[in-house]
Amino acid sequence: MKSETKMTVRYAETDRMGIVHHSRYFPIFEVARADWLRKSGMTYSQMEEAGIWLPLCEAGAKYIKGLQYDDDYIVYAEMKSMSVARCRFEYEIYKMPEMELAATGFTEHGFTAPSLKPINLKKKHPQIWEKLCILMETK
Amino acid sequence: MKSETKMTVRYAETDRMGIVHHSRYFPIFEVARADWLRKSGMTYSQMEEAGIWLPLCEAGAKYIKGLQYDDDYIVYAEMKSMSVARCRFEYEIYKMPEMELAATGFTEHGFTAPSLKPINLKKKHPQIWEKLCILMETK
Amino acid sequence: MKSETKMTVRYAETDRMGIVHHSRYFPIFEVARADWLRKSGMTYSQMEEAGIWLPLCEAGAKYIKGLQYDDDYIVYAEMKSMSVARCRFEYEIYKMPEMELAATGFTEHGFTAPSLKPINLKKKHPQIWEKLCILMETK
Amino acid sequence: MKSETKMTVRYAETDRMGIVHHSRYFPIFEVARADWLRKSGMTYSQMEEAGIWLPLCEAGAKYIKGLQYDDDYIVYAEMKSMSVARCRFEYEIYKMPEMELAATGFTEHGFTAPSLKPINLKKKHPQIWEKLCILMETK
Repeated sequence: MKSETKMTVRYAETDRMGIVHHSRYFPIFEVARADWLRKSGMTYSQMEEAGIWLPLCEAGAKYIKGLQYDDDYIVYAEMKSMSVARCRFEYEIYKMPEMELAATGFTEHGFTAPSLKPINLKKKHPQIWEKLCILMETK
Repeated sequence: MKSETKMTVRYAETDRMGIVHHSRYFPIFEVARADWLRKSGMTYSQMEEAGIWLPLCEAGAKYIKGLQYDDDYIVYAEMKSMSVARCRFEYEIYKMPEMELAATGFTEHGFTAPSLKPINLKKKHPQIWEKLCILMETK
Repeated sequence: MKSETKMTVRYAETDRMGIVHHSRYFPIFEVARADWLRKSGMTYSQMEEAGIWLPLCEAGAKYIKGLQYDDDYIVYAEMKSMSVARCRFEYEIYKMPEMELAATGFTEHGFTAPSLKPINLKKKHPQIWEKLCILMETK
Repeated sequence: MKSETKMTVRYAETDRMGIVHHSRYFPIFEVARADWLRKSGMTYSQMEEAGIWLPLCEAGAKYIKGLQYDDDYIVYAEMKSMSVARCRFEYEIYKMPEMELAATGFTEHGFTAPSLKPINLKKKHPQIWEKLCILMETK
């Protein structure tokens, strides 16, 4: 299942090239990822309160077409794979209304306790593991 | 006593006007404020670990001359007043090497516990209170 | 006339205190200001293309209640005064759904050419001046 | 040749996990990249003024050990490859003083005109091309 988030470029996201600074796509992916998780019936905030943190192990982005101030765009996010220890999300950003591909990206996260120590999600939180599995496989 | 911090404008701090985005002066003030505190023999980090948090009550800035990418500048910071419940810092940013005034600003902070509940700094941490008083009055 | 913008706190806007970093209220005010301007039938982007820039002369904020990750909030923005050379916006942020006041702020802007040289908006762009006057006075 | 840049984590770079937000490593890489370029006798700013822009095509990072507020660290940057159309930088961040690897990353950039249209750097700016080649190969 892909989530879909509509957003608009903020002025503060641009740099002196006049386009969105490459670092600012990651907070955008993050908003989209939270929207994906929300579909499990649980917010990212609630996951953190339940003691499940998702710090990043790796992240990457490809910049295809620079977004500009006030551009409307849509972000698709999807959890692509998951093990008991980590998960991977992938993202696509399309400039609206023409739906031109602007950027793609991915993030890989470990499942950890608030101490940032790794946990086995399936063992520690089987119900949440189950929900995420179902959500990932839903078309 | 004024602290003095030399810094250089980062690309990511600029916006599409080609100057430093107005919001990004506040993290700069924050670096300067940490340098002022460090002179007390205690880092801001150590204050937080000791259970003293300094969340902001108020902040302001005047923008006189827009800083640009790669500009070197110097920030002067000073604690201007302090009560048992809060303190006020003031800042001046000068563009180097001509030492042209680029911006001024202030921040007001409450002294709180990590719960963000107000504390009486003088009663709760008399030694730190004393150190800050001395540092504030030192020429 | 006040504009009204609904937003949600992004993870990247928080700092290690667990609340929105004080600097990040200014990009939020900026989004709200753009929404106010949009009601004039002209986007901030179009104003810039017409050669009218609005760099900041001054900005300030009062922090009443720290917003946290995923909090929904509403920002009211309003142009409070305008001369031929500059204008002032004021903002109020309320945490939803209880509509608790979280922060207030203001920004003062000069009207300039893309060279950042001041312009007389009324003389240079009388139609835009007129539109903004009407919008400011509309209840 | 690797450049070496010493920096300290800013408060505003942390998020509510208490570590540097993953997006904020990219502005750090950018500072390091500018320091590498500076060794060519030309600043990134001067390159932009000469009409050579380096927008990003791709970027990535691996997060090994989360940096915390006030941590000192060192960033090594190096241009690893270059064609007439693009170049690739790689980065390593070590936490000081123990020199523990905290993160690695890369960025790939196109050479473009200010219009963001690709240019052939070797043809268009042979002297700069030459300088970068020498700098890249210097041990």
